[in-house]
This record gives sequence, C-alpha cells and structure tokens, in this order.
Amino acid sequence: MGDVHRARARTAAVAAQLAPSAPTPAWDAAVADLKATFPASQLSLDLKTRNQHGQSFGSLLPPAPPAAIVHALSTEDVVQVVRICSRRGIVLIPTGGRTALEGQFQATCCNPPPEERWNGPAGSDEEGHVEQKKRATASSRPTVHVSLSRMQDIRLYEQDFQAVVQPGVGWKSLNEHLAARGIKLFFPVDPAPGSEFGGMAGVAGSGTNAVGYGTLRAEWIQSLTVVLMDGSVIRTKGANRARKSTTGFDTARLFLGSEGTLGIITELTVRLAPVLPLKVALTSFPTVAQAVSTVVSILSAGMTPTSLELLDGTSIHGLNLAKLLPESLPEEPTVLMRFSNPDDKANFANLEIVRGFVRQNGGRDLKVAKNEKENDDLWTARKSQYWSQQLLVGEGCRTLITDVCVPISRLAEFVSRSDVLVEQSGLVAPIVAHIGDGNVHRAILWKGAPGETEPPRAVEKLAKQLVELAQELEGTCAGEHGIGLTKRKYLRAELGEGTLALMRTVKRALDPLNLLNPGKVLFDEDESV
Amino acid sequence: MGDVHRARARTAAVAAQLAPSAPTPAWDAAVADLKATFPASQLSLDLKTRNQHGQSFGSLLPPAPPAAIVHALSTEDVVQVVRICSRRGIVLIPTGGRTALEGQFQATCCNPPPEERWNGPAGSDEEGHVEQKKRATASSRPTVHVSLSRMQDIRLYEQDFQAVVQPGVGWKSLNEHLAARGIKLFFPVDPAPGSEFGGMAGVAGSGTNAVGYGTLRAEWIQSLTVVLMDGSVIRTKGANRARKSTTGFDTARLFLGSEGTLGIITELTVRLAPVLPLKVALTSFPTVAQAVSTVVSILSAGMTPTSLELLDGTSIHGLNLAKLLPESLPEEPTVLMRFSNPDDKANFANLEIVRGFVRQNGGRDLKVAKNEKENDDLWTARKSQYWSQQLLVGEGCRTLITDVCVPISRLAEFVSRSDVLVEQSGLVAPIVAHIGDGNVHRAILWKGAPGETEPPRAVEKLAKQLVELAQELEGTCAGEHGIGLTKRKYLRAELGEGTLALMRTVKRALDPLNLLNPGKVLFDEDESV
Repeated sequence: MGDVHRARARTAAVAAQLAPSAPTPAWDAAVADLKATFPASQLSLDLKTRNQHGQSFGSLLPPAPPAAIVHALSTEDVVQVVRICSRRGIVLIPTGGRTALEGQFQATCCNPPPEERWNGPAGSDEEGHVEQKKRATASSRPTVHVSLSRMQDIRLYEQDFQAVVQPGVGWKSLNEHLAARGIKLFFPVDPAPGSEFGGMAGVAGSGTNAVGYGTLRAEWIQSLTVVLMDGSVIRTKGANRARKSTTGFDTARLFLGSEGTLGIITELTVRLAPVLPLKVALTSFPTVAQAVSTVVSILSAGMTPTSLELLDGTSIHGLNLAKLLPESLPEEPTVLMRFSNPDDKANFANLEIVRGFVRQNGGRDLKVAKNEKENDDLWTARKSQYWSQQLLVGEGCRTLITDVCVPISRLAEFVSRSDVLVEQSGLVAPIVAHIGDGNVHRAILWKGAPGETEPPRAVEKLAKQLVELAQELEGTCAGEHGIGLTKRKYLRAELGEGTLALMRTVKRALDPLNLLNPGKVLFDEDESV
Repeated sequence: MGDVHRARARTAAVAAQLAPSAPTPAWDAAVADLKATFPASQLSLDLKTRNQHGQSFGSLLPPAPPAAIVHALSTEDVVQVVRICSRRGIVLIPTGGRTALEGQFQATCCNPPPEERWNGPAGSDEEGHVEQKKRATASSRPTVHVSLSRMQDIRLYEQDFQAVVQPGVGWKSLNEHLAARGIKLFFPVDPAPGSEFGGMAGVAGSGTNAVGYGTLRAEWIQSLTVVLMDGSVIRTKGANRARKSTTGFDTARLFLGSEGTLGIITELTVRLAPVLPLKVALTSFPTVAQAVSTVVSILSAGMTPTSLELLDGTSIHGLNLAKLLPESLPEEPTVLMRFSNPDDKANFANLEIVRGFVRQNGGRDLKVAKNEKENDDLWTARKSQYWSQQLLVGEGCRTLITDVCVPISRLAEFVSRSDVLVEQSGLVAPIVAHIGDGNVHRAILWKGAPGETEPPRAVEKLAKQLVELAQELEGTCAGEHGIGLTKRKYLRAELGEGTLALMRTVKRALDPLNLLNPGKVLFDEDESV
C-alpha cells in the first residue's frame, strides 16, 4: 500500500494512544454540579421519576432508570448539562416521548448490568428506593437523561408552510395547535401518537402516511438547532428558512436517524402540508399477491393516497372478535386506503378508477366511506388493530412488533414465506403492513409468563428469521422503528462493514469521549457482540 | 472549562502535530503509476482533452485544465485512482457533465495560479501545448480529474419504481431510456439538461419540478456506492432496496451536496415517478406580490403543479424580441404553471379553480394549453428564456446567473428591493424564478469586453448585493446551484461558524490528507479569505 498508507497507519496508532478518553466517572461531583446549576424543579433524583424515565412505552427491554434526569427548558440548559457530563465523564442521553420501541433512548447505555435493572415499581418502599439509588450511583457508567419534553414552544410561518418547534412538541400537539387556530396546515408524518419532534428526528421514522408524503427524511425537517458534545450550538441552516438550499452537505441529515448519538436537537424547522379532504375505502383479496398488484396499479396511475395499509386474515380475525366494525369482514388479506385530493369529487373519481383495479385483480367490491363518520368507522380497523390483536391470545398477551421493509416486488414472497415460518414457530403473528412502502409489521404474540423479563426463545427466533428473510429479499431489518439496542445485531449483515466504519468515524469525530448515548445503533467497540 | 476540556485541547494539539499530512506531491511518480494502471484509452494527458476538461458550461470562472484525466469504467478504476493520488499526494477531483455553474468540479482546486489558467484554445499549436503542460506539471498542487462520464449502466426495477444508475448517466438519458422501453416512469428532478447523476448528487440541486417533486434530497436518491479516500468502497444501504429504512443516520446524505469533497460516487439507486399528463397555463399580473399571492393559494389548495415559474417584465421583453411565441405577451410579471394529475380531466378541473385564484388576485385571464402542441408552445417561454435574454443586450452578451432563494412570504419584497438595486447598478437583470420555491434567478447581463476573464466590478457588486438582500430576508445564497468556489465567501454569514466547523470536522475525518476536491464549498484552512 505504499509509504503514505504506512505512515498514516503509524500516525493513526500514535494518535489513538493520545486520543481523548472519558475521565473516570465522578458521579458525586456531577450531582453537585447539576444541583448548583439547576433548580430542584428541573432536576429529578428520586426513584419514582427515575423509574418512570427507565421505561419506554411498547419496548420489551427491561426498564433501566437513569441516575438523574435534567428537565431542560432551553438550549442553554442543554449546553450546561453537556458541559457537566463531559467534564465529569458521565453518560448523557436525550429523552422525550419515550415511545421508541427498540430501546433508543434507554438509560445506562448498552447492556445494563443486572443489578442496575429495574425490577418492578418500587412504589413508596423507601428502603428499596435508597437501595436502588446506591446501585445506580455505584455503576461504572452512571447515566444522566436530559429530558426535552418541557421544551414546547411553537412558532408559525403560515404563508411559508413552516413551523419552528422545540423538541418536546408532539406531532399531534402541533396539529391540534394548528387546527385550534383555524390554520389549514398539518404535519403529515405520523409515527406513534405520543412521539415528540426531538425523538422523531432522532429515529427519522414514518407512519401510515409515508406512501403519500414520504418519511421524515423527505424534506419535512428543514433545519435543526443542535447542541454538540463540545458544548457548541449550531443551527444547521443558520437563519435561512428558504424552501430549498444547496449550501454543502446538509448537516441536519447527520442527526436525522442518529438516535441521539451525535448531538442533542433543541429546535426544529419543519415543513407543513395543506389539510385536504380524505376518503377511506376498503376491500379484500384471496391472496396478498393480488393486493400488491392492485397497489402497484394505484401508484403507477399517479394517484395520491396518503395511506395504503394491509391487514392479513389473522388481523381481521382479531378485529372481528373485537366487534368494532358495523359488520364482520372476510378474514382474508384486506387493503385499507385513504385518498387525499383538493376536493372529494377528485377523491371519488380516484376511487372509481381504483374500483376497476380491484376488480381486475380479483378483489371484492370496494367499500367507500360516504361521509366523515364512515371514514372514521373504516379507519377504526387500522387504529384498533394493536388492541384487537391481543384478543387472539387473550389475557396476558405480550407483543413483539417486527418492522422489516422489502421492495414491493418482493412483498408477496415475503408474506408467503414468513407465513411458513410463523406456522413452524407455533406462534400467532398477525400482519399490519404499510403495503405501499413494503413495510411489514408482524406482531408476534404470546401469553407472557409471570415474572418474564424477556421474550421466550421461540419469539426471538421468529423475529430473527423474519429479519433474515427480509434481508435475503433485498429489504431492511428496520423500516421505521430504528435500531436502538435490539436491532444492532442485524446491522452489519445489512449495511456492510464499510458503512458501519463510516458511521463510527463520524461518531468519533463528533463525540470523541463516547459519552452521548453510547452503544446505540452501533455496538460500542469494547462490547462483545 | 475544567480539566477534561483542557486535557482534550492538549491532546488535540499533540494529535494535530502528528496528524497525517499530504506527502510532497510526486507528479512524475503519479503519472508512472497511472500509466502502469490504465490503458491509454482511459488516460488523457494531452492538452486538448485537458483543456476541454478545464471548462464548465455556463461557469464564468477562467478555465483551468487538470494535469491528467482518468476515464473510469468501474468502481475498481476509481479505487485505483484514489490509491495512486493518496500515495503520491495528488489532488483528485471527480468530474462528469461539467454543467456546474459555481466551479464545483474545476481543476487545481481553489484559486488556480495565473500561470496555470487556460488562456484560450491552444488548437494545434504544438509549442503552446508543451509549454502549458510543463506549467501544469510544475504546479505545487497538480490535479487529476477522474471522469465518471463513461460509467453509464442502467438497471431497472420497474415494479419498485427504482433504477440503479452509474454516475455518468444523465437524468435526460435515463428518462429517454425508460421512454424507449415503453416504461411509464421518469426521474423528476431536472437540473441542467447535460447533468449526470454523479454531479447531480454532488450538488443536490433541483430544477423546474421542485415545487411538485421536491429537490434531489427528497428521497429520490435511496442509496449510493461511494469510494472513500482510504480506498474503501461502501454501499450506504448495503443490499437493501426497500422504499424506507431507519438504520442509523443515512450516510448517503453526507455525499449529497458535498460537491465531491467527501467521497466519489460510483453508483446510485434512484426512485422514479409515474409519467402523468401535463397541462401548461400562463397568466400575468400587475405586480409580483399578486403573482405570489396566487401561487400561495394554489399550494394551499393542495394541488399538484410540477412547476410554478415566474418571468418578470424584462424577461418577457426578451421573449417578445425573440418572437418565439405565436403572439407577444404583456411585459409584466408572468406566471407559467404546469399541472400534473392522473388524467387531463383532473388537470382542467385544477386549472378552473386556478382561474378563480388568478381573477381574485387581479391577474389577466388564464391561457390554458388545449393540447400537446400548445403545451410545448407555452413552455417555450421557459425553455428559451436563457437564449432570448441575450437579445436584451445584443452581441457579446455575457451572463452571471444568480441563485438566491427566500421564504415565499419574503419573495415580493425581495423582488421589489432587488429591482431598486438593479436600477442603481445600471445593468439589465431579468428574472426567472421558481416562484413556488422562492428561488429567484436574476441573470445579470452585460456586453463582454474583448479579453475579459472575469465579470466587471459592477456585476460582481450587484451579485453580492442580491445575496446579502436574500440573506437579510431569511434566505440563502444558493437555492440550487451549490457553492463551489464562487459562493464560499457568503457561507459563514449564512450558516454560522458552528455549522462550518462541523462540516470541516467531517471533511477532516473522511479526507485527512485534504486531497479530494480541496477548497470547494469551504475555504481551505490555509487560504486567505
């Protein structure tokens, strides 16, 4: 490789020896700094609040409380926390709506040692409280959560279809804020209802509207204010709010999807879309292949559905058990569609064409909602699906939601081959898929045993098989829920060593002490994988 | 700042002393390596080809020929060039369609010393040839161009609305390739007609369709194969071709807009859109404010125009002089629209509503194209605008195309205040704007003097004033043409020191020897700014 490469390797080796490394964690000094900096109302050290922050809704990981929570009210607060944690060698994790499913913002980084795990609510058990606190502070990597949830300012630029929001604002709150003011704009990317913008940008996910509006990466986030681990504050686009710009690589894109490992987002400039009349329709098909073929026809025709959702026969069985719909549906692959056009006349015109596609593909007659109420009724099938699935297993039902995504041309094959895997596993695993994007959520269901802290082996095995099948079919392990802790093991096979190395290079350049949400997305280098 | 920060600063200082630096350029050895590696058909050392590659169509910078051009045929070829240039300390610049306007891919990096500038075609003047070659090779930073233009493979995944293209494919060629096969899909982002995908990704620009389809950053590029300066090859998404994924930050986004400074793109997975019927319409208004107000109404109604273009009275005067249209148009702010829907019935329905908006805003009656020919005739007004503008100044007309973009709420103010600046300058500067995005191109025109190598001071001054005005109005210096060499001076004021520092950090991490297209986007650290 020649002299230069040898020289570079030597230099790198020497530099590595000299590279900054985190100081020995000094927890007591950090707590003293935090207490000196923040009023009691912004600093939680009590077990009850820490336990609350140790959980993420819907995540199957054992809860892990942080050692302290700082409730930031401003960018300057975040800068202060960053400085204290850097100085004292304390791990720092941003947190918000706590809806991440893969452990993205969970405390104590990678693999919390067993003695640090939270083993159920401590309630008012004062002894337990003290005991647990001691353990956490004795950990070799005590963790501070900086919660952004209290940062909830919204600034609107209606004519520019823009809002500037703080990270604690939820997409639903923003939309309610707009509706309450009679402004006919909304933020169209719809992940979990409790998601806040900071975490949404961190995961860069999507929801039911991605087929129409794209994911969070489709220019919905125009600029970010970010606190970096050296304590500096950047606005990725400066004061520029224009719809387009080409001023070098877009540094905001580093933080979208980085799951809080590269910087802490304290403000977001987001783009809004006009609110349009929606029209929901539903039909079903003998096979998933026929459903896929119909969806490809709809997309090829250039129509603008916001959502194209698939529920399989098992999911529909759950819905029928729940008796939520006016009448039972045939228990076969069912496509729910939501169309969006400037007026309902155009929606109906679209749906007449869709009716033809459905017929050509052997589907049942298309049910089209005639009014707002029927829209809501039909959409209930989608909204209640998580809840109604539980009925398939009954009391004590637990759920592992998988999140693969495949090219639409491989979707029918994915479903049929994964049906075989489910059958072999003996488990129940209904499908809800964002069929227009090829994003398939099989919810693996089982009856949880008392005291169970992690999913049974058969569940883990099926989840792994589904990922491997998706990757074989040119798909991904993570369509919209991100990587966090639980999907890291699949990443090398999917992205290749080169891409991982590049991600590590960027991480090291931005967080040389590896204090910011370490061990998320990528394994820490000292972890045995 | 405490011990840790001091320790880090010390470590950084020591590391900087040890940091790899480019070896003394060894040009003769590099040429020997290149000759040993590539056949003569892939290596150009002759002045004629070098001169061709020293120019960029439409750029006002003095041409600057590279010292050699390698015509890559494969990713492996690019790896070989990277290795040779790294080993020998040679500056390496990727190149393609050479349509970049701001000197993005120009040879000899930042400020070519005068003796290296190309002073007109050498023709067959053998003495000049030798002379020039000597000078180039004597430069302290000899430059190799790696041209990607011969890499033109296209692979289609029709059902997935995807194409995998090599960087030498142009967006127009891809669309012709699809049309020739009867495939009703196209790539909708439309920068300069000669643009190739490698350079398009490098600049991350857009064109007339951005109001409907977004810019290149709106998920049109799904994955990249990139050669990094350590010789490694990454595929940013691995084998994953799914429509969506959330596998950490999207490393492809580092390269979009980085103008060839971070890696060399050798393959792109791009998304396609369905070809739909288009309908063009045109109207004009007494003032730009009324035109803007109409456009905001159209966008608020949720219609899907592909394009909303503004030509000012001066531009229309040029068109009238050119007599390209069946009849003269009123010389006042004119809006050209192109609507796109699944069928023409929907297009006409949209345009009936638009007719109302136009009337409410005091515009003239909307002219709607009745058929394909009338579509083309009306669109001529947009397509011929660059050419017809020249008539405003006459023979010897030269043009500096400006590229600011402002929030649409500030657009009318930008136009009226910039009209005053133009008036003061005594120059002619017609407007063509992508009004839906707030992206205003004022083309500053003047009669070039013989032997002129750069724009007159009055032209430079006006260009600078327009940028400063846009930045004052929360806009950008570069809506879609990128930064290159010519816009670097505006970047600090716009993005702030923090964002620039972050860009530098990433650049250093990926190209520690600073050999890959150095001095583009950001000033080199040793340049006097």
